[in-house]
Amino acid sequence: MTGKLVIIGVGPGDPELLTVKAARHIASAPIIAYFCAANSAGRAYMTAKAYIAPDAHLLQFVYPFTTGVAVTDARYMREIREFYDHCAREMAVHLDEGRDVTLLCEGDPFLYGSAMYLHDRLSERFESEIVPGVTGMSGCWSAARLPMVHGDDILTVLPCTLSEARLRQLTQAGDAFVFMKLGRNMPKLRRVLTALGLAASAIYVEHGSRPQQRIVPFPEAPERAPYFSMVLLPGRKRVR
Amino acid sequence: MTGKLVIIGVGPGDPELLTVKAARHIASAPIIAYFCAANSAGRAYMTAKAYIAPDAHLLQFVYPFTTGVAVTDARYMREIREFYDHCAREMAVHLDEGRDVTLLCEGDPFLYGSAMYLHDRLSERFESEIVPGVTGMSGCWSAARLPMVHGDDILTVLPCTLSEARLRQLTQAGDAFVFMKLGRNMPKLRRVLTALGLAASAIYVEHGSRPQQRIVPFPEAPERAPYFSMVLLPGRKRVR
Ligand SMILES: C[S@@+](CC[C@H](N)C(=O)[O-])C[C@H]1O[C@@H](n2cnc3c(N)ncnc32)[C@H](O)[C@@H]1O
Ligand SMILES: C[S@@+](CC[C@H](N)C(=O)[O-])C[C@H]1O[C@@H](n2cnc3c(N)ncnc32)[C@H](O)[C@@H]1O
Repeated sequence: MTGKLVIIGVGPGDPELLTVKAARHIASAPIIAYFCAANSAGRAYMTAKAYIAPDAHLLQFVYPFTTGVAVTDARYMREIREFYDHCAREMAVHLDEGRDVTLLCEGDPFLYGSAMYLHDRLSERFESEIVPGVTGMSGCWSAARLPMVHGDDILTVLPCTLSEARLRQLTQAGDAFVFMKLGRNMPKLRRVLTALGLAASAIYVEHGSRPQQRIVPFPEAPERAPYFSMVLLPGRKRVR
Repeated sequence: MTGKLVIIGVGPGDPELLTVKAARHIASAPIIAYFCAANSAGRAYMTAKAYIAPDAHLLQFVYPFTTGVAVTDARYMREIREFYDHCAREMAVHLDEGRDVTLLCEGDPFLYGSAMYLHDRLSERFESEIVPGVTGMSGCWSAARLPMVHGDDILTVLPCTLSEARLRQLTQAGDAFVFMKLGRNMPKLRRVLTALGLAASAIYVEHGSRPQQRIVPFPEAPERAPYFSMVLLPGRKRVR
């Protein structure tokens, strides 16, 4: 009997925004795996910490990159693939020996989550279960008390790693928007929203649902945003 | 002292997919409000039922329409506005007398949730808090174990109440798609996905995370889908 791969979304950051199911799974998990940046405790781990059993075995996967290498770079592509291969092998050792492995993931696992790359590598060989989580965007628009998507509004979620031309084109085509992965892309997003006359309607949220949460109108947002930040533009077709 | 309006997302349907925060709020809520269709117990209420205190006061808001009236119809618009005005007034009676009112909502409240219309009517007069929930779409793609949005994929969420031309145009512009509000729009969506050669890659999910859940390839989906159903088309740019 091999073990089961359980992938769990831990939500936007407030430990109370884990689901009852996630809390139950985590409390009884013998092995907890999670990603983190070098010299960091890992956000998903910190969010779930209070629910983890004291004797759980931790598998910490430290990302090989922090900043400085472009995602489109061939070296990045090769090294990140090798990193995911390595993580999958480490998890497979436990799964092969019949132990369940629980992988924690920020927000919801299948919305831009790295957990998908391990799922791709392991789900054919092992039984798997995905526990959905509250997304970062739901955490942010709820914290901002910003009704987002109404009636027949279209919701478009855009990573700001896209080109300026593509961002502009897509922002003209929809109704409600979530702009993720801001980081160094803020000047680009500012140009796009300003050109389209939308800057004043957008809201910037940093660390949504966490103690250090910050919510300001987009024009007051910093030029360089931290990793956990996004910009929200609510739908404009609302029926009151 | 007036009461507080608490709007709670109860997730996709599995009562274990409520958040710890939602469960805590609901258990101590003196007044629980929720929407439902005529002759139905209400999905949000059923999902949260196990957490509601036995002596909680229930405010049930029965939608004036079921089917048969087009959303674009002027009569629909007027009657639905009057309905929301009425619900807001009923809630305001309790809020004015200093009692908190907790409004339950399927999935996440600010993603196509009717709760937004009551928030619009009450949030200026009363303190409010929004507790985000797991969205129906996260519940569905997790149940289907379908990794959805990768790297710099764009996620587009489309209500199938849009015109066929608009659906076709938007489905050509993005990467990953969620098609909501299927109902009688299935033939339209089928024509769009077939014309674009995408029908075989799409997945149909009915009652995601509930006991009656059904997941089939899109070509096997029914011609007329129930209210709680959606079609998922995963992003195509995945890096493995
Ligand atoms: C790799 S994606 C992971 C998304 C995650 N799986 C989810 O469901 O939200 C990382 C991006 O999510 C956004 N994000 C996630 N949680 C957030 C939070 N609590 N506050 C602000 N942004 C957040 C940021 O835009 C960040 O760049
Ligand atoms: C008015 S919207 C409400 C969405 C909700 N606020 C959310 O966050 O998912 C109703 C639509 O949500 C979708 N939906 C919600 N929960 C679902 C579930 N468990 N299974 C399938 N579809 C669901 C259906 O497409 C339905 O037509």
